[in-house]
Amino acid sequence: MAKKPSALHEIPGVSQPETTSALSAAKIKQFRAKKNSVDEFVQAILQGDIPFLSKAITLVESTNSKHQEQANEIIEKCLPFANNSIRIGITGVPGVGKSTFIEAFGKHLTSQGKKVAVLAVDPSSSVNKGSILGDKTRMEQLVTDPNAFIRPSPAGSSLGGVAQKTRESIILCEAAGFDTIIIETVGVGQSETMVHSMVDFFLLLNLAGAGDELQGIKRGIIEMADAIVINKADGENEKNATIAQVEFNKALHLYPLKESNWQPKVLVASALKHIGIDLIAAMIQEYITLTKQNGYFAQHRNAQNRFWLLSTIEQQLKATFYKNPQIQKLLSDEIQQLEAGKTTPFLAAKRLLERKC
Amino acid sequence: MAKKPSALHEIPGVSQPETTSALSAAKIKQFRAKKNSVDEFVQAILQGDIPFLSKAITLVESTNSKHQEQANEIIEKCLPFANNSIRIGITGVPGVGKSTFIEAFGKHLTSQGKKVAVLAVDPSSSVNKGSILGDKTRMEQLVTDPNAFIRPSPAGSSLGGVAQKTRESIILCEAAGFDTIIIETVGVGQSETMVHSMVDFFLLLNLAGAGDELQGIKRGIIEMADAIVINKADGENEKNATIAQVEFNKALHLYPLKESNWQPKVLVASALKHIGIDLIAAMIQEYITLTKQNGYFAQHRNAQNRFWLLSTIEQQLKATFYKNPQIQKLLSDEIQQLEAGKTTPFLAAKRLLERKC
Repeated sequence: MAKKPSALHEIPGVSQPETTSALSAAKIKQFRAKKNSVDEFVQAILQGDIPFLSKAITLVESTNSKHQEQANEIIEKCLPFANNSIRIGITGVPGVGKSTFIEAFGKHLTSQGKKVAVLAVDPSSSVNKGSILGDKTRMEQLVTDPNAFIRPSPAGSSLGGVAQKTRESIILCEAAGFDTIIIETVGVGQSETMVHSMVDFFLLLNLAGAGDELQGIKRGIIEMADAIVINKADGENEKNATIAQVEFNKALHLYPLKESNWQPKVLVASALKHIGIDLIAAMIQEYITLTKQNGYFAQHRNAQNRFWLLSTIEQQLKATFYKNPQIQKLLSDEIQQLEAGKTTPFLAAKRLLERKC
Repeated sequence: MAKKPSALHEIPGVSQPETTSALSAAKIKQFRAKKNSVDEFVQAILQGDIPFLSKAITLVESTNSKHQEQANEIIEKCLPFANNSIRIGITGVPGVGKSTFIEAFGKHLTSQGKKVAVLAVDPSSSVNKGSILGDKTRMEQLVTDPNAFIRPSPAGSSLGGVAQKTRESIILCEAAGFDTIIIETVGVGQSETMVHSMVDFFLLLNLAGAGDELQGIKRGIIEMADAIVINKADGENEKNATIAQVEFNKALHLYPLKESNWQPKVLVASALKHIGIDLIAAMIQEYITLTKQNGYFAQHRNAQNRFWLLSTIEQQLKATFYKNPQIQKLLSDEIQQLEAGKTTPFLAAKRLLERKC
């Protein structure tokens, strides 16, 4: 090999391939640079304009305070047109076939005339970048469906931040006319609890295994589920899926009846072969009819709103307190005193709280 | 029956029996009325003076701010002499024989030269008055033992308040020379989690049943236990107790090894017949030796201290915020707006937090 003047040497004559026409690039630039007013956003969203919906969600997800202000105004103006959807949470450990399931389920719904938005919650994505929904091509058919809107998980941010962004994105999607909102999350960590407290129906995807169906899933997640779907129930797996269905049904009957008066169901499906998808859609409709009739639907949404109001306040109170540099110094001093056995947690707390004002 | 002028009529000539001599009553009055100085308290407690210890705990439990101030000073001066004990939490559902067990266990320890303090945590007692330890006569032998000190649960107050009072009472008992502190609580509600986070060793008392050993106990409590003791293992029950022991052992092995590196044990005992008590004491000693050697003992107490410091601060921040009348008014307005779909939890929280300052 010939000696190069530097490792950064570039072979001359090889330029970037032109995949984007100069005209398109200019259009995109113009669209991005243009500062749209709040009213322009709201008008466009209410007309179901997807680029504007996307851009508004980007504002919601922004950490820039001007963007946040604008996002808040847009949300407030969209609110009267929100809330008219069914919100469905879908979880399951990696490998259970969530993308394939959501694609099949979403296509089934759009074929029935529904408009489906899919949002993802994945607090781990900021760390490992292996985000769910990150690769939209995994939902090839849904992504090109004009009645579907797919939005990957917002990057970075705390669990609380992700929750807020997701809930506000739901409102914007609803205002844009989406009547079914699917929130996807991975079956690990705390994100299930968060998603559970922002949806009307919570669905756990599972696989048939060799007798260990209940392992690997946190017990709390089974308790939260309104339905368990045993996916990949095709070919040789079909028999095992039916066995798993019986097992899960037994397990679910150990729990007391839910406040919604709904007895959680276990269904089998093959998302790949489109088997059982219609029954799942029908079951969710049955749930919505029941809970709208018995008043639980509205009551549950009110309770969720109160929960998010109070938990946001409490998170914020803590954050404000602990980010004060004086408090940080004092806290670390008090912890030293504690470890040396020279104070009690209660006396230390008292001194910290007195210093606050 | 002769007609009486009123239902409140009193038969004349029957007066209260004199169970207390006038002299004793005067002495008690004098003792109660006397305002002891902080130094008098501390001196007496360090000498193991039980009436002073009791009185100091009463100050700790008082809601009077002057009493609390005095209590804080006493605690601070006692602190350098505290911390040298083994703190054991004991729980179990009503009927499992907690009092009999603690009596047998406590007597065993005092016969070995130990000094045993028994404190009770029962947040339910303020409601139903059916307090554990409320009837001290249930521990007839221990209550008259000069090396034992039994203190019933403080009445009223929130769970957080009870926690603080109990933890401060532990410090006073330790300063008074008690080397074993037993914290008793009932096997229902949230008090177990609280007690678990203030003891070194957590023991769950249980009974052998007909195959339903695992029912009626919250799963979380089994996870917390460092040992499960199947009580009343005598006579006809003995065989069932051994079966239950095997069952519980299986259940415990499903959990990953504890951070302490201790594999929780299951023992059988009959507190009534004093069977197995010595083995339980030996097991706890084994645990203490292990965790002092591997450093977990000190590390765990530090973690507990930090937990109580932070949770006290956070409880207090919330309490201060919500008790502000302006905030209360605004909060109820915002909740109305939320229910009417006119705001989001996050916008409402933002407004509430802005009003705060």
